[in-house]
Amino acid sequence: MQWRPTIGSNPVITLTTDFGVGDPYVGMMKAVILSIAPDVRIVDLTHGIRSHDVTEAALVIGSSYAYFPGGAIHVVVVDPGVGSRRRPLLVATEHAYFVAPDNGVLSEIYAASTRVACLELTAARFFRHPVSNTFHGRDVFAPVAAWLSRGVEPEQFGSLVDDRVTLRLPEVRISGRDGLAGTVLRVDKFGNLITNLRAENYRERLQAGKFVLSIGGHQVDRLCRSYRESEGPEPFVIWGSLGLLEISCNQASASKRLEAGVHDGFELRFE
Amino acid sequence: MQWRPTIGSNPVITLTTDFGVGDPYVGMMKAVILSIAPDVRIVDLTHGIRSHDVTEAALVIGSSYAYFPGGAIHVVVVDPGVGSRRRPLLVATEHAYFVAPDNGVLSEIYAASTRVACLELTAARFFRHPVSNTFHGRDVFAPVAAWLSRGVEPEQFGSLVDDRVTLRLPEVRISGRDGLAGTVLRVDKFGNLITNLRAENYRERLQAGKFVLSIGGHQVDRLCRSYRESEGPEPFVIWGSLGLLEISCNQASASKRLEAGVHDGFELRFE
Amino acid sequence: MQWRPTIGSNPVITLTTDFGVGDPYVGMMKAVILSIAPDVRIVDLTHGIRSHDVTEAALVIGSSYAYFPGGAIHVVVVDPGVGSRRRPLLVATEHAYFVAPDNGVLSEIYAASTRVACLELTAARFFRHPVSNTFHGRDVFAPVAAWLSRGVEPEQFGSLVDDRVTLRLPEVRISGRDGLAGTVLRVDKFGNLITNLRAENYRERLQAGKFVLSIGGHQVDRLCRSYRESEGPEPFVIWGSLGLLEISCNQASASKRLEAGVHDGFELRFE
Repeated sequence: MQWRPTIGSNPVITLTTDFGVGDPYVGMMKAVILSIAPDVRIVDLTHGIRSHDVTEAALVIGSSYAYFPGGAIHVVVVDPGVGSRRRPLLVATEHAYFVAPDNGVLSEIYAASTRVACLELTAARFFRHPVSNTFHGRDVFAPVAAWLSRGVEPEQFGSLVDDRVTLRLPEVRISGRDGLAGTVLRVDKFGNLITNLRAENYRERLQAGKFVLSIGGHQVDRLCRSYRESEGPEPFVIWGSLGLLEISCNQASASKRLEAGVHDGFELRFE
Repeated sequence: MQWRPTIGSNPVITLTTDFGVGDPYVGMMKAVILSIAPDVRIVDLTHGIRSHDVTEAALVIGSSYAYFPGGAIHVVVVDPGVGSRRRPLLVATEHAYFVAPDNGVLSEIYAASTRVACLELTAARFFRHPVSNTFHGRDVFAPVAAWLSRGVEPEQFGSLVDDRVTLRLPEVRISGRDGLAGTVLRVDKFGNLITNLRAENYRERLQAGKFVLSIGGHQVDRLCRSYRESEGPEPFVIWGSLGLLEISCNQASASKRLEAGVHDGFELRFE
Repeated sequence: MQWRPTIGSNPVITLTTDFGVGDPYVGMMKAVILSIAPDVRIVDLTHGIRSHDVTEAALVIGSSYAYFPGGAIHVVVVDPGVGSRRRPLLVATEHAYFVAPDNGVLSEIYAASTRVACLELTAARFFRHPVSNTFHGRDVFAPVAAWLSRGVEPEQFGSLVDDRVTLRLPEVRISGRDGLAGTVLRVDKFGNLITNLRAENYRERLQAGKFVLSIGGHQVDRLCRSYRESEGPEPFVIWGSLGLLEISCNQASASKRLEAGVHDGFELRFE
């Protein structure tokens, strides 16, 4: 590797897992990190990923990492294949480092980065021993992130690989003559339905004229600029804070109102 | 402003939101803060405020801020009006700083402080750009708190305003000749019903003699000094750790047992 | 005390409670700690202990503390007897410090340590005043941990006691000629049933031959080395990351599938 992001004097490690916060698993990862790197800053991105949902984790880290300082180390552990032959990776991009299983959870990172180097983690001297077959978050990913934050060179952890696993996330498709077919990627705590339509691709078209969005027998035909702009209870669409189109209600859950959720499809027809 | 709290060499930023911890929204706010102020200490007060419940957030920050070191910066984002014309504020009191929307969420702070200065946040150079219409927590409040922690003078962020929004929180009323009518403000994780009767106003009267508290068809007539003092399952009242009267059970949920919750009224009759 | 663990220059305080994260109670404890020890590192182990469940907390801290740096200060507040005559303790072992009520919540620490010194916390000058009868986490345990992290000598907080409270955790029993009777200690977020069979005692016997584990009318007869090894939906047993036997399913909840939970017994019969 001829290049790498600079970690700097205030290293940051973020954690994204499906562990929840009711068990001590996240605390154990932090314990291992602090035993190696007592000064590193640890930030929880979320531990609320649905159990085993690699796609959800890919979306969450993909929409969040860019807000962190350059050179941050992002540990992502949604790892249904732990203990099997799936590889543990250290990935460097022009922006940041990522430590995660090679199961596609970094797909959005690969797609958004100009430079990507993937190293398979093989140098067991940087692992915690004995390495369990059920918790590489604690025994592999956490200690590697900690050593990296202390200045160990990426190449020390293993060798470059070029056949990384990539997930296919749902894409927007053309539907009929004047329509698009999209997918709900996530539902957030407020019940906003976060779709896969990106502002950079579709903002102009939606603002240009009338449209009808159909989801599960319901129709939505209003675009708002803020939640409050819609004074009634009717759902509307809005360009959300992740740069994606969201289907929302003012102070109510669009997910409940429209009886719609993750993976649900919708049609968008321009008139 | 001729006065202001001193932030000191170990600045603290606290976060109180209705974002939950299942989405990456809180992590994004921390990312923005750390990009500006890498050394600041961030403490989560809670992210479990009910969605859009400005009153609950007002009670939570109002009962908590005084435990933090003087000069702490408290960011409170329960903001159903985000993107509309509600103003973003920086508030200084003799004790601390507060960064929040002008929707009444700081009402308990105003009531408890001798000195209050409210500045409308208008200096967009301290915001994250582009500023979304849906997430000022990330784009306005977090970066302002971070710059403040780094020593930017309050006046740099905007101009003083004197028509801040204040919520009316439920007050204790006289009821009949020998009674009071109160309200349940919150229910905590243990099922304790936290009421609006303050110890400083009512402690003596309750200790002086017999009383009956009626809530939803149930009667409570015992005052305990600790949870354990009540050995059976019957509910009792107790002066809780927030300085408010609570209706509780020993190792059980008073909320479930009395089928009572937030906003429920009760009568207290002295005999 | 002739000996004590060294706290070092990067002191760590961990918090384990049954407070949840929806109330500001944990934030208040952190506020008190930071007011006394602005530089200390605070790590949440979990606040998701079931309300008043001293046994669960004993298991969680017992399985976690050893991952933290030596000299860490572990605050454990599951305290149904708060305000009654149960004693508040500071405990030192050869590995770490513990601050907790004397209700058995440190039983697993006592069992695992060679040296144990228990001090009853009596020096009220290290408490926060006024001391409430309902929240010693904030008023007693948090400030004591903070002062300890700043170098106050353990003896300053109170006097040695030798009649500490110990819980009897469920033990594995012999059952019939070729069998064992065990208990489910916890269910984690993934639905894994964590049992009381320790790898160091039973690993060889389980690997040696055939067995049948019976739980609530279901039979499990397969031992896997990783979750993925089991390709179907059938439950299996696995040596989990806490060094205990777990009953698990591949990407599904064994607890739901077997309709089993905490405190449930099971039989293990070798053939």
